[in-house]
Amino acid sequence: MGIDVGIGPGSESEPKIKHLWINSLKSAPKYYWEDFKVGDTASMGEMRVDKDEVIAFAQAYDPQPFHIDEEAAKRSFFSGLIASGWHTCAMVMRMMVDSYLRDSASLGSPGVENVRWLKPVRPGDTIRAQRHVLETRASQSKPGIGIVKSRWEVFNQDGELVMTMEGYGMFERRNPGAA
Amino acid sequence: MGIDVGIGPGSESEPKIKHLWINSLKSAPKYYWEDFKVGDTASMGEMRVDKDEVIAFAQAYDPQPFHIDEEAAKRSFFSGLIASGWHTCAMVMRMMVDSYLRDSASLGSPGVENVRWLKPVRPGDTIRAQRHVLETRASQSKPGIGIVKSRWEVFNQDGELVMTMEGYGMFERRNPGAA
Repeated sequence: MGIDVGIGPGSESEPKIKHLWINSLKSAPKYYWEDFKVGDTASMGEMRVDKDEVIAFAQAYDPQPFHIDEEAAKRSFFSGLIASGWHTCAMVMRMMVDSYLRDSASLGSPGVENVRWLKPVRPGDTIRAQRHVLETRASQSKPGIGIVKSRWEVFNQDGELVMTMEGYGMFERRNPGAA
Repeated sequence: MGIDVGIGPGSESEPKIKHLWINSLKSAPKYYWEDFKVGDTASMGEMRVDKDEVIAFAQAYDPQPFHIDEEAAKRSFFSGLIASGWHTCAMVMRMMVDSYLRDSASLGSPGVENVRWLKPVRPGDTIRAQRHVLETRASQSKPGIGIVKSRWEVFNQDGELVMTMEGYGMFERRNPGAA
């Protein structure tokens, strides 16, 4: 948890302010740290994997032949074009934002772990994702902040598990003073 | 190591072929699995963090206010626009490809772990990255393939460590028959 959670409004130089909306939402967040409970499971919806986007993402960030060149990819280890694993992570992030982070008092993430690209994700696939709350704890040093550890699972249209990861989210607390 | 390393050319249906270049490079790779040695450390170069790109990436994949809206970001926890952590990962991936994977017999990655976004990465920053080889081992089930575990460290222009991660790369072996 290396991120410096002392930066920005709400740090020592400011009086303790309860609902600061320091995540800059335009309205009150629906979900604070307290709204995530261990064992919660929810769908994050689905997303179609677009070929042009697979190629464009990889041309910018991961220009290996099996991500950007359809003919070379056919001759490759993967027998066809596959999405960069980072593109899959980015798509999952978008599903997170659309399904819950957009309405939450999210303060970003200090990190993720155990990212596993289990099966190729290919243009034309439809991926869907689920989230599971593994742990929650209040920050020791910052009374206004809580940490949520989640596991995300990504499946393709055939029900195959194509990617998993775990990670931490920081959220404003609704009741910073509570135990 | 969940990826099915049996897919594609080189699997059971094919005779054992030595230099198949199954990663589809246009020429012989410079680096095979054998060329990665525990303890190797190398620079992966540097990259400037462009504001328009920070916003465009986040609009597509991580549209939280502190990544896409300069004014909202100023009022946020982060006191200004920051790059999506996934964008930083993607930039590091690009540095990996440009600095060594492009010339290697890379066969993708089954995963990464311990991704830590330690400090904000901001538009205008210049990040540089280093790689360290932590472990190497030949695949037990696939004689043509070896695994390299690396650690990547990312610094900003002030020498601050902004991100670290570890992960696995699969590479073709130069000498699949060797012990």
